[in-house]
Amino acid sequence: MSNEPAGLQESHPMNGGDGTYSYSKNSYYQKQGSTFAAAMINEAISEKLDIEKLSYSALNVFRMADLGCSVGPNTFFSMQNILEAVQHKYHSLGIKTQIPEFQVFFNDHAGNDFNTLFASLPPEKQYSAAGVPGSFYGRLFPNSSLHFVYSSYALQWLSKVPEEVLNKNSPAWNKGRIHCTNAAEAVANAYTAQFTKDMKVFLDARAKEVVAGGMMVLITPSVSVYLLLDILVPACLLFDFLGSSLMSMAKEGLVREELVDTFNLPIYIPSSKEMTKVAEENGCFRIEKMQLTNHSPRVETRIDGKAYSMHIRAGMEGIFSKHFGSEIIDELFDRFHKKIDESSDLLREASREGTQLFVVLKRK
Amino acid sequence: MSNEPAGLQESHPMNGGDGTYSYSKNSYYQKQGSTFAAAMINEAISEKLDIEKLSYSALNVFRMADLGCSVGPNTFFSMQNILEAVQHKYHSLGIKTQIPEFQVFFNDHAGNDFNTLFASLPPEKQYSAAGVPGSFYGRLFPNSSLHFVYSSYALQWLSKVPEEVLNKNSPAWNKGRIHCTNAAEAVANAYTAQFTKDMKVFLDARAKEVVAGGMMVLITPSVSVYLLLDILVPACLLFDFLGSSLMSMAKEGLVREELVDTFNLPIYIPSSKEMTKVAEENGCFRIEKMQLTNHSPRVETRIDGKAYSMHIRAGMEGIFSKHFGSEIIDELFDRFHKKIDESSDLLREASREGTQLFVVLKRK
Repeated sequence: MSNEPAGLQESHPMNGGDGTYSYSKNSYYQKQGSTFAAAMINEAISEKLDIEKLSYSALNVFRMADLGCSVGPNTFFSMQNILEAVQHKYHSLGIKTQIPEFQVFFNDHAGNDFNTLFASLPPEKQYSAAGVPGSFYGRLFPNSSLHFVYSSYALQWLSKVPEEVLNKNSPAWNKGRIHCTNAAEAVANAYTAQFTKDMKVFLDARAKEVVAGGMMVLITPSVSVYLLLDILVPACLLFDFLGSSLMSMAKEGLVREELVDTFNLPIYIPSSKEMTKVAEENGCFRIEKMQLTNHSPRVETRIDGKAYSMHIRAGMEGIFSKHFGSEIIDELFDRFHKKIDESSDLLREASREGTQLFVVLKRK
Repeated sequence: MSNEPAGLQESHPMNGGDGTYSYSKNSYYQKQGSTFAAAMINEAISEKLDIEKLSYSALNVFRMADLGCSVGPNTFFSMQNILEAVQHKYHSLGIKTQIPEFQVFFNDHAGNDFNTLFASLPPEKQYSAAGVPGSFYGRLFPNSSLHFVYSSYALQWLSKVPEEVLNKNSPAWNKGRIHCTNAAEAVANAYTAQFTKDMKVFLDARAKEVVAGGMMVLITPSVSVYLLLDILVPACLLFDFLGSSLMSMAKEGLVREELVDTFNLPIYIPSSKEMTKVAEENGCFRIEKMQLTNHSPRVETRIDGKAYSMHIRAGMEGIFSKHFGSEIIDELFDRFHKKIDESSDLLREASREGTQLFVVLKRK
């Protein structure tokens, strides 16, 4: 198989280990999303997974992958849930053939903390486990070797920052901002183009790796497209808060303004319309479901700025400290936390709208 | 699949990272062994691998595993060599079916430094890579899912120290020694029994995982059984040197003698006769080759005690520092290094005899 040259893909691993700011101790929002998604996944498997077709060629091993699994524990929860839903489907169909064994591939960048992931594998797991290092914007598995692909809160990471936004001479030069939120149209267009290009590579690779009849469940943070023009939605608000925290630090001389100008988050929050378009253009998958969902229970109390800040820090500290140096991190997330506290009402309001995109694709 | 409860198997990872005492910088003896073995593996694949049988059920993906791979780079060399030998066999047979894709599973204990392993995967590799954490003294893969298993310099590690040698009231109580070398017969018997038990578990697991016609190549340090009674052979000499270094430190009050008494290396150097016996008792594999080899070029110069000591330290520092504390390590390996220098002639003489056991098994 052809592989991407090392270093071509950017890698922004979540905080490893299990310390105060580790991803494993600060990923309950993702977990909440996973729990909510579990019910939707069960429904998708129950209604759409074509076990007869998959079993046509003597299926002894059902192979599944979590792309962008990070270090757990959410991935273990999700993989176990899918495994049980598939087993349940076999039972409910009364299929005569034996239920296959399961093999689970945990994928993330080579820079991910696989040591922590492996150390915390559930001892009672009902599957063979393997870790697969590498960017999912490229080939990871042999042809037709996967029956189920899952990816949750990972596809929002672009393979890289769009080049134009780093180019001083481009209309997309993104001065004073760290994301396309509230930025010039040219910046937004550059981000959309990068997302489209990355998703094309992603879907082309998966189309080769997933067997006919195999299923993909993709979950990304998203925006309610209906409200996009009226109010700012949570994920984008947060990037804006981080950006303005950095700019205020720059004004006070705590960070060089030039560093802020040259920093952009390689993150894109796709709409269902954009996701539909790339899937249709690929053409190898049938879109079984494309749905905006809201995984949060209705938030009635104040949003806890500190907890929210710790959560975002666990996932994003690496990318900020790489560019700005680790000495600014405490101050950055302190300011960020205060901004969240100040905007609690706005965030609570926004959280009532759809913030998660749930996609089910089936390989034709 | 059933899994061993976490923590049941002892784990003694090689030194991780790439520092002065790291395994990755101090594994050239293993590399030398691998290079020598490569020619023998090529021959085994060329003569014995039954590709027609393997291809009978439409082989799209040729799955191989390195059990006890450590952190590289030797494992990459070995896997690439096997891959090329299999490709060559396909070509030489002029097989009409397409040459399969390759998937390589790198296995070692969950405590192995997989992060370092993954970071150093060859960018130009011709296979899909996956890491599989867990003890090979237990199930690791689904039924009938592997076509080739390789394990080099790993099976000498027992799953644990035999219990009797730690029991003060047993005739096998191994006071003042850290291995069965030159120890009482009861100690040697306890070690042999543990090896037999471990290899039974190993072969039972692999018999389930390897497809009919699939091949296993196992390489372990070994002894020339012909000379066992006449001279001490290298591996055992080294354990004896480590043990006597510790005892001399105990005499000088640098280490508590009780700590030496309660420490034993979970290492066994099997003879070809013992290996043959366990394979025959398992009964699922045909023994294609069972050969003592000497991978070292004839040593004519003095053996470099310092280099040898660094090499052993990279592989074994962890197990000593866990028991004795890391503060004794420098002194221990300093004494060890001097003992090697003093016994250079003896070691050189012994190195002319067979010191490596090369085993080829084929799944019936």
